[in-house]
Amino acid sequence: MVNITKFLSTFHTLSKIGWDENSGMNRLALSENDIKVRKELIKRLKAIDANIKYDDAGNVIAKIGNKNKTIALGSHLDSVPHGGRFDGAYGVIAGLSILEDLKDEIKNFSLELVDFTNEEGSRWTPSLMGSGLTTGVFSREFVYSQKDRQGITFEEALKNSGFLGEEKNRLMYNQPDYYLELHIEQGPILEREGFNIGIPVGIVSLRVLDVIFKGESNQAGPTPMSYRKDALIALSKIAYRVRDYALKRDERLRITIGVVDVKPNVYNAIPGEVHFTIDIRSYEDSVLESATAYVTDLIKNTAEEEDLEHSVNVKWTAKRVNFDKEVIGLIEESCKELNLKYKLMWSWAGHDAQYMTRISRVGMIFVPSVNGRSHTKEEFTKDEDLINGLKVLELTVRKIDERL
Amino acid sequence: MVNITKFLSTFHTLSKIGWDENSGMNRLALSENDIKVRKELIKRLKAIDANIKYDDAGNVIAKIGNKNKTIALGSHLDSVPHGGRFDGAYGVIAGLSILEDLKDEIKNFSLELVDFTNEEGSRWTPSLMGSGLTTGVFSREFVYSQKDRQGITFEEALKNSGFLGEEKNRLMYNQPDYYLELHIEQGPILEREGFNIGIPVGIVSLRVLDVIFKGESNQAGPTPMSYRKDALIALSKIAYRVRDYALKRDERLRITIGVVDVKPNVYNAIPGEVHFTIDIRSYEDSVLESATAYVTDLIKNTAEEEDLEHSVNVKWTAKRVNFDKEVIGLIEESCKELNLKYKLMWSWAGHDAQYMTRISRVGMIFVPSVNGRSHTKEEFTKDEDLINGLKVLELTVRKIDERL
Repeated sequence: MVNITKFLSTFHTLSKIGWDENSGMNRLALSENDIKVRKELIKRLKAIDANIKYDDAGNVIAKIGNKNKTIALGSHLDSVPHGGRFDGAYGVIAGLSILEDLKDEIKNFSLELVDFTNEEGSRWTPSLMGSGLTTGVFSREFVYSQKDRQGITFEEALKNSGFLGEEKNRLMYNQPDYYLELHIEQGPILEREGFNIGIPVGIVSLRVLDVIFKGESNQAGPTPMSYRKDALIALSKIAYRVRDYALKRDERLRITIGVVDVKPNVYNAIPGEVHFTIDIRSYEDSVLESATAYVTDLIKNTAEEEDLEHSVNVKWTAKRVNFDKEVIGLIEESCKELNLKYKLMWSWAGHDAQYMTRISRVGMIFVPSVNGRSHTKEEFTKDEDLINGLKVLELTVRKIDERL
Repeated sequence: MVNITKFLSTFHTLSKIGWDENSGMNRLALSENDIKVRKELIKRLKAIDANIKYDDAGNVIAKIGNKNKTIALGSHLDSVPHGGRFDGAYGVIAGLSILEDLKDEIKNFSLELVDFTNEEGSRWTPSLMGSGLTTGVFSREFVYSQKDRQGITFEEALKNSGFLGEEKNRLMYNQPDYYLELHIEQGPILEREGFNIGIPVGIVSLRVLDVIFKGESNQAGPTPMSYRKDALIALSKIAYRVRDYALKRDERLRITIGVVDVKPNVYNAIPGEVHFTIDIRSYEDSVLESATAYVTDLIKNTAEEEDLEHSVNVKWTAKRVNFDKEVIGLIEESCKELNLKYKLMWSWAGHDAQYMTRISRVGMIFVPSVNGRSHTKEEFTKDEDLINGLKVLELTVRKIDERL
């Protein structure tokens, strides 16, 4: 049986690393705090004689047992700047508890814990970097050459961190049969609808567009309204309409304009250029395509109306993945046995589990986030919910061991 | 008679200081380039035995003659970053030419040239700093404590520049009877409507509002559309309506949203906060008040619709000033005599002339700006128009000397 008290104590102890009441969690990938928490993890893995390896993405991969078949558990210990304590860390420390407490009970599988490097993509883009390299989605050249805001490459930081390992240790060459990831929901649905557990059926498709409207910047005073080519007006005319379009299709579509950069951004100058991003997500490809077409047309027509130049480029795309039906079924059974109210749902955010579907049978387990907050110091999940998630994870591992 | 060839040669020579084809004019107040161009100006003023003083704002005040009455001419040599060659410098160098060439012809007045410090307000806010201190609008404590982006105070830079002079040299204690400022229009009207000269009747009123919409930033993926409090949507709903409101009142009203800062400004995060400025200008106080009321109501109602918090604060106000009717009349007469097509118009931008109305009888002369561009390296005025302006200035000085 998994030791709940020890799990909570470990979780709340390790959560202090990089945490500050005022500025939240600052554990950027391979930063001093990230290295510190990884060392604490490794200390605990060594205490149970786990076989610890690093791959060439710096992922920490720790195995217990020598069975042919493996169940991997994992997530990430890095955070966004000023983030929360639960995102990623919950899944890693829950996985650690399973290894610690179930290592002698699981008969047919080795157990493996993975801490993926730079999941957040806050220090180096793209996100899911460690899981992307270890599953063969990204090339080493690509990820090694990425620079952080100080100009430090991923390669340089990885070498200095002490976590640079060998390519042969990648999970793509040592494929776990199963991969389970326990995570906070990062949204409000479970709490608002009164569920204990969310079971993602997969991760939705994502398309991020980079849009530019270009007019002419002139002085605010001397330029009459009718002579202006104000790029901000075009953004203004589309942003609320795009939101209204998505709102009407709320179950199936989410659209967000997150980045807005106005040039020259001076109070007495007409905005000559506006650059912004449109993040479009859906679990239905046809909905994603229709939304992209709607948005693209709207941008084009608005640019014409306002006599502006425009460009629309796809900045990032992620195709929908489906999680393993049998694993989902076992998670459902576990919830039923534990008498927990669960909801089958989509994950609308990316997770390392996304790329793991390429090499393993994957399932995820969500627990409620208070007020749906995440990536902020207000991110919170009650101990009771952390425990529920851990119990579901434990039982699912046991069921895989027994039945699959 | 003013020497046109020498004027053009001096103007185009001094325009090279701080100028670069790629990055435009970089002559921030009291920067190396501003100091260099001031020294060139002073060399030329010394050559004609002008009495050169600095006041405690670092304004350069140079007088020729010892009559009781004075006609001052001036503007500023500082520029915005990546600005143009004409804004400010045109008026100063034209004034220099008048002192050089008319000093023995003007019988009843001394002639004075003023180069005002930090007119642009790009290095230290507020703008019109030198003219504001020398006319008693600002206190010395206020302007001395302003810091630039490197944290350097105006006082510190002024001391290091060598241009720190005495308070007793302020123009408020040595009030010129007249002040004339020749300037580029910085707008498109004269060129588009086919005028050679613009004669401002005054400077319009200005009110700048600082607005904040505050919602909640959550992750773009996991947060359904209907649960969002997206601050950007509120800005979107108002910006084009505010523009349309001003467009309908184009002759009398100009409104610009120039600064937009979105937090956290990340592609996959809902904008939790948007800060922006609304710059409102009119020459009719009732129009300015109605526009402020319209905008404030719109902000309040939109915040309610979108369930956001909001705040509206007045960041900056400038009250309309009227230029001197007799001076305007003499400028009109000069245009007629020179057979130049002129337009009486409002100045919709602030100029040092604004504060000079407190201590002198003031007039301004505008010349066309190609495509209305200003505060950019594309800022351009043809030699022919520079000459027209200079001739009008010369004739107006002569007429004041003869008649007033």
